[in-house]
Amino acid sequence: MDTQHTSGKRRLVIIGGGFGGLSLAKHIDKRRWDVRIIDRHNYHSFAPLFYQVAASELGPDSITFPLRREARRRRMRGCLFDMGEVRAVDVGRRVVVTDCEEVPYDAVVIAAGATNNFFGMDSLRDKVYTLKSVPEAIRCRNAALERLERAAFCTDPAMRRRLLTFVVVGGGPTGVEVAGALGEAKRYVVRRDYPRISPDEVRVVLCEGSDRLLRTMSGRSSADALRYLRELMVDVRLAKTMKSYEGSTVTFADGESIDTETVIWTAGISGSPLELRGTDVKAGPGGRFAIDEYCRLEGLDDVYAIGDIACHTDSRYPRGCPQLAQPAIQQGRALARNLNRPEHARPFSYRDKGSMATIGRNRAVVDMGRLHFGGWAAWMAWMLVHLVTLLGMRNKLAVLLNWTWSYFNHSTSLRMILKPAEKPDKHFKTE
Amino acid sequence: MDTQHTSGKRRLVIIGGGFGGLSLAKHIDKRRWDVRIIDRHNYHSFAPLFYQVAASELGPDSITFPLRREARRRRMRGCLFDMGEVRAVDVGRRVVVTDCEEVPYDAVVIAAGATNNFFGMDSLRDKVYTLKSVPEAIRCRNAALERLERAAFCTDPAMRRRLLTFVVVGGGPTGVEVAGALGEAKRYVVRRDYPRISPDEVRVVLCEGSDRLLRTMSGRSSADALRYLRELMVDVRLAKTMKSYEGSTVTFADGESIDTETVIWTAGISGSPLELRGTDVKAGPGGRFAIDEYCRLEGLDDVYAIGDIACHTDSRYPRGCPQLAQPAIQQGRALARNLNRPEHARPFSYRDKGSMATIGRNRAVVDMGRLHFGGWAAWMAWMLVHLVTLLGMRNKLAVLLNWTWSYFNHSTSLRMILKPAEKPDKHFKTE
Repeated sequence: MDTQHTSGKRRLVIIGGGFGGLSLAKHIDKRRWDVRIIDRHNYHSFAPLFYQVAASELGPDSITFPLRREARRRRMRGCLFDMGEVRAVDVGRRVVVTDCEEVPYDAVVIAAGATNNFFGMDSLRDKVYTLKSVPEAIRCRNAALERLERAAFCTDPAMRRRLLTFVVVGGGPTGVEVAGALGEAKRYVVRRDYPRISPDEVRVVLCEGSDRLLRTMSGRSSADALRYLRELMVDVRLAKTMKSYEGSTVTFADGESIDTETVIWTAGISGSPLELRGTDVKAGPGGRFAIDEYCRLEGLDDVYAIGDIACHTDSRYPRGCPQLAQPAIQQGRALARNLNRPEHARPFSYRDKGSMATIGRNRAVVDMGRLHFGGWAAWMAWMLVHLVTLLGMRNKLAVLLNWTWSYFNHSTSLRMILKPAEKPDKHFKTE
Repeated sequence: MDTQHTSGKRRLVIIGGGFGGLSLAKHIDKRRWDVRIIDRHNYHSFAPLFYQVAASELGPDSITFPLRREARRRRMRGCLFDMGEVRAVDVGRRVVVTDCEEVPYDAVVIAAGATNNFFGMDSLRDKVYTLKSVPEAIRCRNAALERLERAAFCTDPAMRRRLLTFVVVGGGPTGVEVAGALGEAKRYVVRRDYPRISPDEVRVVLCEGSDRLLRTMSGRSSADALRYLRELMVDVRLAKTMKSYEGSTVTFADGESIDTETVIWTAGISGSPLELRGTDVKAGPGGRFAIDEYCRLEGLDDVYAIGDIACHTDSRYPRGCPQLAQPAIQQGRALARNLNRPEHARPFSYRDKGSMATIGRNRAVVDMGRLHFGGWAAWMAWMLVHLVTLLGMRNKLAVLLNWTWSYFNHSTSLRMILKPAEKPDKHFKTE
């Protein structure tokens, strides 16, 4: 803390305005640090509800919040925001390189989150639908609705079957949640909105490579989730590994195949690609940067990582903390405390507050330590936790309005295929 | 009415689910007609509020409504909906040709609305931003926000000036409303959200070719609108005709030029392009089909047109009814009545209920016959009329929530650059 900058403050650059980055920005001492947050989007997005955007249950503007507005709040006052796509951190020159500018730092925190992992099957990237960002969720929603619109007047039986088959790959929380939402849509939405499609024609298949759903949760949660999904007529296939998706055919490792126009891939995540220049340090397995218990990148000065892109291993988590909102938030707070008072730095340790997943319209599973509960009570708990953690009072009200509305009439009025007009976009390089 | 179809009903195809198409579908007798609505979108959209989407004041899902849900309502029960881009009406074979299918008809109503008119300057199409559909409004919103994000750290003075100059071309209701919204944003949003941009740097220019704004309204409304816009620091230029937009420079007929990265074009509308096959009948001036007082296309049997794409002239409107929601709604109702009871067909006559435009956050102008009023009362009237005519209770509540929210804190939390992920889209040809 000796190299004071001219303003008397040191420059902290936070890459990413997600749960980790915002938690850090809130707790950092703005009298000691000049804080600048860089994100590729001009909004914070609430990842736990992406699947509801994909399922037309919420509009994208209910689960996003402008970072500039957030930066004006009391606890973040003084933070600057820049929109930009970070290309690299140049640790030799101590600058963050974006697509538009170079931002010098005294300390940098990589909180860039995670994206999809196709485990080497890179040709999947343009063929499957994914749920790791709001733009991906909007694309998935538009695709699902387009399939139904096309099927409505499709007379070729094979094509009609392909259009009405939705294959979800990956039985983690996102996969389970999106399959549940599609199961609900099959039961309630298709029956009412598409007179020329029989709900029985719609097929939702959920494939998981291991032998149970929600592998990171308790055995009881796995069993409950499986039961709830089957009640929603979702065709759950366990121990089923996808091998390829060519043309309109998904092929599994056991040789079975399914014809479908829509594959939703939730099977793997990987740290967002980010290059470090001027060092040999690289991201490790799963695209994650190894960090020590002070969130420092091993072997580098003043470079930190938190959240999904960071990998902190200890005896409880030999493969790193789970990639969820809670570890990111806790790491952000812990790192802020250490940067505020480096002379009293304390090692980080993740405190598991529990995990939950929702299945369909009024069921969920919750694990808290040894406690497990499911069904309607879990669903209420799930809703409450998500409403409370969602940023912005307007968003909370909008989500509550939509949820209440759809609870009573199974209809959210949000099934619009909305996209911006497709025309050339200008790209401005301003420096 | 002699050629009865096998079901005992005649097949009516309505092209377009806008104000005109829905009004017709509601009033048509479903016991006599099999009704099918075709629209390129799966939603009805509320055109009077497009400019609020462009100005980040409302989310696109608050002003759109799924047509399939609408088709389930009591007054429309029995109507079928198909999503498709209509390519042509083949009057010889009596089918409507879309990008996906061919739909036979006994009677067809062209209610396809209007799009932008560039008066021969077709190179403008990809360069300027427009507001004739929801996708165009989303694109305009994203562009305006991107300009501010880029300007925030742009150090090149000329580039910065271009990024912060917004030129609105056309002084009709849409031009006045979007310029007013940008003026508000300059005063309230930029000051608070963009600490590195001074509100004085932001320049909003509104150009109108004639010598007054809101040419179709009263002189008092024109004068009030001009005054309100000037109070919002909008640079209004009258008798100013745009000649070209090359590179980043708008040039006017009088030789003056303005450097800008953002031109919003509201200067002209034209009927949506639609080909008639098997006949010599073509769209006339402004892309509008000439119709008689029974909404029939002159010279054709069982082909009708209503709304913005139709042109019905009489002594009061020698150049056709104004292209607004009211004439479309009234024509839809009148045509339904005539199709229901052709033996008692009555000629259509437009009843002007008045017109209004809003300027900024709490001012509007209203003309009703000889009555004119402006200011806050007009703004309340404007809000009330728009809330009442907006489709869907959820939408009304969402819009009311947003308007109330932003009235009290000048912030709508909706300033997100939201787009679907850009990846190849599948196009299904199903027949």
